[in-house]
Amino acid sequence: MQDRVYNFSAGPSQLPLPVLEQAQKDLLCYPGTGTSVLEMSHRSKAFDDIIVEAEASLRRLMDIPDDYAVLFLQGGATLQFSMVAMNLARQGDTMAFIKSGQFSSKAMQEGARWGNAVCVASSEDKNYSYIPKIDPASFPKDARFLHFTGNNTVFGTTFWELPQIPAAVGGAAETRLVGDWSSSILGMDIDVKKHDLIYAGAQKNIGPAGVTVVILKKDILDEPVDPLLPVMLRYKAMSDGRSMHNTPPCFAIYVSGLVFRWVEEQGGVAAMEKINREKAGLLYDFIDGSDFYTGLAEPGSRSIMNVTFKLPSKELDAEFIALCASRGMINLKGYRTVGGCRASIYNGMPIEGVKKLVDTMKEFELVKH
Amino acid sequence: MQDRVYNFSAGPSQLPLPVLEQAQKDLLCYPGTGTSVLEMSHRSKAFDDIIVEAEASLRRLMDIPDDYAVLFLQGGATLQFSMVAMNLARQGDTMAFIKSGQFSSKAMQEGARWGNAVCVASSEDKNYSYIPKIDPASFPKDARFLHFTGNNTVFGTTFWELPQIPAAVGGAAETRLVGDWSSSILGMDIDVKKHDLIYAGAQKNIGPAGVTVVILKKDILDEPVDPLLPVMLRYKAMSDGRSMHNTPPCFAIYVSGLVFRWVEEQGGVAAMEKINREKAGLLYDFIDGSDFYTGLAEPGSRSIMNVTFKLPSKELDAEFIALCASRGMINLKGYRTVGGCRASIYNGMPIEGVKKLVDTMKEFELVKH
Repeated sequence: MQDRVYNFSAGPSQLPLPVLEQAQKDLLCYPGTGTSVLEMSHRSKAFDDIIVEAEASLRRLMDIPDDYAVLFLQGGATLQFSMVAMNLARQGDTMAFIKSGQFSSKAMQEGARWGNAVCVASSEDKNYSYIPKIDPASFPKDARFLHFTGNNTVFGTTFWELPQIPAAVGGAAETRLVGDWSSSILGMDIDVKKHDLIYAGAQKNIGPAGVTVVILKKDILDEPVDPLLPVMLRYKAMSDGRSMHNTPPCFAIYVSGLVFRWVEEQGGVAAMEKINREKAGLLYDFIDGSDFYTGLAEPGSRSIMNVTFKLPSKELDAEFIALCASRGMINLKGYRTVGGCRASIYNGMPIEGVKKLVDTMKEFELVKH
Repeated sequence: MQDRVYNFSAGPSQLPLPVLEQAQKDLLCYPGTGTSVLEMSHRSKAFDDIIVEAEASLRRLMDIPDDYAVLFLQGGATLQFSMVAMNLARQGDTMAFIKSGQFSSKAMQEGARWGNAVCVASSEDKNYSYIPKIDPASFPKDARFLHFTGNNTVFGTTFWELPQIPAAVGGAAETRLVGDWSSSILGMDIDVKKHDLIYAGAQKNIGPAGVTVVILKKDILDEPVDPLLPVMLRYKAMSDGRSMHNTPPCFAIYVSGLVFRWVEEQGGVAAMEKINREKAGLLYDFIDGSDFYTGLAEPGSRSIMNVTFKLPSKELDAEFIALCASRGMINLKGYRTVGGCRASIYNGMPIEGVKKLVDTMKEFELVKH
């Protein structure tokens, strides 16, 4: 077998090796069934056990209270942009959005198809290099929800404090807090109880692409929705069907369950956050001590999942990225609107990968500086 | 390793063993990449090759003309029920549906959320045991499309002739033909050119659950859609993004591509149809020659994908199904609204599995009759 590389992709991204090995071992025959999970009826006892245990494991990991439902859906975070608006607001209702990067802007764009999407904070002025603060005066009193993107994959920033819905708010309608935590879920502590709804595309810290986790307060399920809403876009139908209203993405849910078990074996989310802080610290400390590399996110807003930085020129960026690739460290190119480099170091990235990257950064600086 | 069973599930269902073996072999390292497809960036060259080749292979297999787009989407056939209505009709427009079973009724139900869904033929009177004919007189002149379910998984019936849109139709609006071919695609000849849109959930003849194939005439992409339509529900956005507007279900697409290649190696769809007719023939001939087993679908409507039958009593049904399970033939229970037994014998089911089933049917009849 060819050597495996260190994959610094922003997503889909590197999975823990023991998870892949387990999936490989059982690929032809899931124990006790004589079939692959790729072929397994979602109405079978074996798959029911898989999805029930995946949910139970996630509930333990994130300390999800009983009055929250956990759903495994399709369509990625992008479909959640729409489902959040269409389930939490009526047509024309007001919704509040924090624009802290690319995906938060897309969420607002989708919300605007359905209602009155108001931007209550933005860091667009500095190309999203920091986490913006809400101006309480401009916060719409009738916002059905406040949406934010907890970790901004493209820019490498994170909400280290949850956004506060201004106290003045709260007239007829309660303003719910909705967090897209696609790229930090299970990688750092997230207080579920302080949210009404959290969603996360799997392909960063959870598992393979093709499944999206939604954690939502059960009282959301009682809210009436527009009759035109497709059944597949209704949280209540998805919850009533235990994420199996129709055939779910069985294999992606199964692999996610293996990842959840692996995170539990590592000591849970607190243990993952500790090692993720250590991994990110190695990179940020080196960047801060160098005048060759420059960090792209403001220090107080820095993500421990996506570390963005640049070299003194675009040519050096490209040369460095190519050198890394030649040494088995791939997908380090920054997103095109940001440039430079981006090292995504989710749970599946071992610290050895980060050390190897820092060593290569040191060496490249010595040669080029 | 435990012995693999013969899995007669209606879906997700048995996949060709060489496909599973290939996926297993490359699970840790897809050749030339150093990563698993489960971890692979959808923006990478390697994944682009995978999705491009999957589409090319499907185009060869189904002889898909250049003026049709091929999409790999999420959400299953159930999301297509809504996407078809919301993309091919404006709010309130008329749509025609043939009710030939459970999924066609659900398609009509989702259509009715968006517009005026008219039933133009139904076999509900005989519990969907046959394919109904359209009454031209009752066909709405302004129907934007006619929707039918090509193969009815639950009841074991198939449209051996495509439904005809009555000649009288065709005023201002053209009536498009939309076929849900989830359970027959690649298992029998389907003339793409006679449809405007075909869709199919993968988990029967295509691959694992979690991806849906949509084949549609490109001129549909030019039709204006309602501004409120979520981006994930817009065929044009999905086509513009080459099925990668957001992260697609990479692994499910990859395994589907392996299945497409396997079907090509078997000699293509014509070869599959030949063996599928042979497999179904073994079962139907035996059932027709027996007064112990009774076929549930009318002979002229019989599916070669799902063979439904019953024994003289519910107790015998259950006893027979349990006997089969003990011999490594699983998921033979009929759907609850139909009862009896159902043998789903998609492309992945080898003829040996069907022979073993018929042998067990013979033996059980001898003992019990």
